Amino acid sequence: MVSWIKNFAALFTGKPATVLSGEAPQAIKLLCSRRSCRSFSDEPLREEEIQSILEAGRFAPSTVNLQTWTFITFSREQWHETFDRPIPFKGAFAITICADNFRLKNLLPDLQDTPFVNLSLAIFNAGLAAMSMNLAAEALGIRSIMLSETARAGLLDSAFLREKLKLPEKVLPLTTLVLGRSGIKLPGIPPRQPLDAVVMPAHYNKDAGALLGDWYKQMFLGYKLTHPLSSFDRQIAIYRKKMTDAEAVVKGMFYKI
Amino acid sequence: MVSWIKNFAALFTGKPATVLSGEAPQAIKLLCSRRSCRSFSDEPLREEEIQSILEAGRFAPSTVNLQTWTFITFSREQWHETFDRPIPFKGAFAITICADNFRLKNLLPDLQDTPFVNLSLAIFNAGLAAMSMNLAAEALGIRSIMLSETARAGLLDSAFLREKLKLPEKVLPLTTLVLGRSGIKLPGIPPRQPLDAVVMPAHYNKDAGALLGDWYKQMFLGYKLTHPLSSFDRQIAIYRKKMTDAEAVVKGMFYKI
Repeated sequence: MVSWIKNFAALFTGKPATVLSGEAPQAIKLLCSRRSCRSFSDEPLREEEIQSILEAGRFAPSTVNLQTWTFITFSREQWHETFDRPIPFKGAFAITICADNFRLKNLLPDLQDTPFVNLSLAIFNAGLAAMSMNLAAEALGIRSIMLSETARAGLLDSAFLREKLKLPEKVLPLTTLVLGRSGIKLPGIPPRQPLDAVVMPAHYNKDAGALLGDWYKQMFLGYKLTHPLSSFDRQIAIYRKKMTDAEAVVKGMFYKI
Repeated sequence: MVSWIKNFAALFTGKPATVLSGEAPQAIKLLCSRRSCRSFSDEPLREEEIQSILEAGRFAPSTVNLQTWTFITFSREQWHETFDRPIPFKGAFAITICADNFRLKNLLPDLQDTPFVNLSLAIFNAGLAAMSMNLAAEALGIRSIMLSETARAGLLDSAFLREKLKLPEKVLPLTTLVLGRSGIKLPGIPPRQPLDAVVMPAHYNKDAGALLGDWYKQMFLGYKLTHPLSSFDRQIAIYRKKMTDAEAVVKGMFYKI
């Protein structure tokens, strides 16, 4: 019972232990306090804001500086033309972030015969670029959400996106970063797994899963509070179905040499 | 000839077009100016700095908030005990960032039958966390480098790292973030591909590879300048050999259900 009360409290206070206190640099506060936004206002983004966000992605680090990513960009009009509906959550601008081993294939033909390594590195690098763009938006006071299974805008709808965005072989869509402004107060940060479950000194701790009980309860409770008509269980069931549908497509991507 | 001069100039000036000018927020300046450091001083990191960096990783966003990452941490002593040599480039602290679908496997057994989707998402999420930690370090004035093929500390040495770090099935090491201080002036930012090659409005541009000629020349020139005894060609050849060695191991990881 005490742990439930603590969990409930953690849902509303769930803040990082050390970094937000005292004189933490602004960038660290941004890193530890960003939230996904699910409701945007009509207000557009300014062109220079969009450029800054894209530049932050372009200047992200990558393995051997090969920049194995592509950012497909959408104004509201372009999204509507492509998908015949508004940007999810009525965002003002959207960037579909892809792992890309296509663009370099003619320039570096020697690196084409290891598709699993290539695509794994490209996915990881795209994650670096995605976080850079997300943080750039936060720094500009622009809100965002990264979609991977919502609204057919991420990895779990790879086949759909490949067709809609005319993606060639070796290009895997991972997420859509939806951007915009919002006056809405965002809910608390969803619960994070305890530090001891995630950070392991010197070698892997196979028992770390046993430390996740409270976190799992918090996820349940948090979902119920923010989605009274649904549940974390139900969300996982939906997620599982989408993952099962996507598995063969994603697997096929790894074999597209 | 003019383009060579322009390329040469770009090597030293290669800065993002818009974001560093004027009143850009500090976080954006960090995002667009971070550099990999390859020589660290003896000075250690403070415990609260390490905690802040790890918290930035723990608080990164992830698909369905599942936090499918693990951070294996090393002091100088722990790295030496594990690998029998110093942290690469004499770093003060190291974090090996892994995609992790092991920790959750008992808690979420329903999500275990789609290994390609799971691992792809986990790699992407780990990229988000890696960039968050990298940026947190930058914000604290701590320098860093992310290794994926150097010093057997990343994805290309998965089999070696799995043994050394006692990684179970479903855990894929991606990179080691080496951290420390340095008084050394860092070289310019390596050349980025042109914006038009990376950012594509509304759908994929299959001809973007043709825009990379200048960038490729810059990579050659830059390598020659910073590695007079080597070349970009030679680096690519080394990289290719390591990728070929790693391919079967990485592929095997995707099949470990």
